[in-house]
Amino acid sequence: MNASPLGEGAKVAILMQGYLRNHFGKLGFGMLRYSPADIVAVVDGENAGGDLRALTGIPRCAPIVRSCSEARDLGAETLVLGVAPPGGRLPQDWWDEVLAALRLGMLVVNPLHSPLAANEEVRRAGGRVWDVRVEPPDLDTASGRALGLSCARVLTVGTDMAVGKMTASLEMAFAARRMDIAAEFVATGQTGICIWGSGVAVDAVRLDFAPGAVERETLRASESGAEVLFVEGQGAINHPAASAVLAIMRGCMATHLVLCTRAEQRSLWRFPDLPVPPLQSLIETYETMAAGGGAFPRPKTIGIALDTHELDEPEALQAIERLEREVGLPVVDPVRQGAARLIQAFLQTR
Amino acid sequence: MNASPLGEGAKVAILMQGYLRNHFGKLGFGMLRYSPADIVAVVDGENAGGDLRALTGIPRCAPIVRSCSEARDLGAETLVLGVAPPGGRLPQDWWDEVLAALRLGMLVVNPLHSPLAANEEVRRAGGRVWDVRVEPPDLDTASGRALGLSCARVLTVGTDMAVGKMTASLEMAFAARRMDIAAEFVATGQTGICIWGSGVAVDAVRLDFAPGAVERETLRASESGAEVLFVEGQGAINHPAASAVLAIMRGCMATHLVLCTRAEQRSLWRFPDLPVPPLQSLIETYETMAAGGGAFPRPKTIGIALDTHELDEPEALQAIERLEREVGLPVVDPVRQGAARLIQAFLQTR
Repeated sequence: MNASPLGEGAKVAILMQGYLRNHFGKLGFGMLRYSPADIVAVVDGENAGGDLRALTGIPRCAPIVRSCSEARDLGAETLVLGVAPPGGRLPQDWWDEVLAALRLGMLVVNPLHSPLAANEEVRRAGGRVWDVRVEPPDLDTASGRALGLSCARVLTVGTDMAVGKMTASLEMAFAARRMDIAAEFVATGQTGICIWGSGVAVDAVRLDFAPGAVERETLRASESGAEVLFVEGQGAINHPAASAVLAIMRGCMATHLVLCTRAEQRSLWRFPDLPVPPLQSLIETYETMAAGGGAFPRPKTIGIALDTHELDEPEALQAIERLEREVGLPVVDPVRQGAARLIQAFLQTR
Repeated sequence: MNASPLGEGAKVAILMQGYLRNHFGKLGFGMLRYSPADIVAVVDGENAGGDLRALTGIPRCAPIVRSCSEARDLGAETLVLGVAPPGGRLPQDWWDEVLAALRLGMLVVNPLHSPLAANEEVRRAGGRVWDVRVEPPDLDTASGRALGLSCARVLTVGTDMAVGKMTASLEMAFAARRMDIAAEFVATGQTGICIWGSGVAVDAVRLDFAPGAVERETLRASESGAEVLFVEGQGAINHPAASAVLAIMRGCMATHLVLCTRAEQRSLWRFPDLPVPPLQSLIETYETMAAGGGAFPRPKTIGIALDTHELDEPEALQAIERLEREVGLPVVDPVRQGAARLIQAFLQTR
């Protein structure tokens, strides 16, 4: 079905080079947790031979190998850079592995800020590269065509960066599929793209074309005949550096919203002086923006995805219950509980 | 004061090459109407020797000459491409004039989509080029620092593209200055940049950096000691292809809004099936977005700028009066009437 080099059945290796226990490897961890691809190996010289489940806590079995050459021997056809190095420049030993993979004929998927395709050494290695975090070619401005789609578009919106918008969207897509609902995911960031095998990194697209880029992915995802698209949100309306949410809203013309937040979040992570406004007020703002003053149908917020990973189980359940009483909407931690309740809430709106 | 090659006292020629009577020349017309620079010549072979005021209706005196060489002889140091050719590619005779200007040592200001600086012929001509419509270097994400500014930030927002947002912002800046208020303009599009001599074309900036780009221009403009900055808005919240308004709101952290619309506008220009929502509803939406659900101070809408250029004078005045009764805010056509009433309304909010 999915012909993407990162889709179902694809043979993938992830380069984690010494970062199997570090948050710089968050893209690799996301793939280990959620990728439908066949992850045939993790390349990490430091941890080669180790137990992936024990090291990461993620229930995925794959051998940890020393080099791309070993990964290739195991059948890997694609190498994904699973780590974003601090500072952004690839250390020499990572770079050596990338070149080795290219010379072995592997496709290298690069989610880092700096594109590799134009690199001289990459070209000399005769390599094939997919730079995920660049503006795709042949974009156009948006047309509003998503308004005419028969499938629902459920967009995650947030109270901050990194409060689980991608995770909630993925968990909802999986939960919907388990309930026999034809669901697709629309990735708008590099990790989502690597997990799903398609999408667009909106942050790398010129503002003029950003809604059009999301629209293109939305229309493409709808062509599978999905009943519902789960669109990965970005940023937050209460964040001074974030403005992607409007481009995504216009591109997908959301019919439903899910608000994502962190349990007991008082202020923005990078702006501790900026308190997070009341969730009811954020919900109102997101719905109002999406409706464009009445130009477009106003989406309905179906519930809240609460990231409780910093709490233990009883605390988490208490926090969920408290918030549910407070806001009067279904609240779940999609990682702890799955997203079935959000899908049920969605179905009740139809 | 203004060291820009397009600022006060700068010696500028505008290339209009056969387009002195055509809307493709709208950037050149904008400069003729509003530029503080000394426009020493308009280059237009077809209309050379003609009367600029008679041809354009704009009260600016400048000779129309045949070539950049003649403009150079008149003292021009900078050539601005005043026309956007249909299709986007420069016709050969325009291109010849550009190369001639570069060889004469003139700076060429290029507001077109395609950058010229990297062009091989331009480099061989040893030319200096300012590509206005590209992402500036060394951008960062926004920091919210505009929140701490002591000057007001008045942002124009709209009911559509091309409803006079730039014009209203400029007219307000001029009206404020005439009332001895220290005012600056912050340009966010190519015409505004060419008129004011600084600014950023947000549509060409990657989404991640767009609020930061506007923030940088806002902070820079505030350094003059201005009491108020008039920030040029873009797009419209009710337009399916537009999303720049949020990036601009976050970059400048608007304290006041002015809604711009066209008299009797029923629907979007490029989307005739999309009716324009009630203005009250658009105002509410813009203010709500700017406030970010309560994270930032809610801006106050001080009035409406109404583009009445399609109406005759009595019709225009009737339309203004009617709208003022309907919305309960001051309404002016800034081109017909000047923007003094909007500035008075602004002063009453202080």
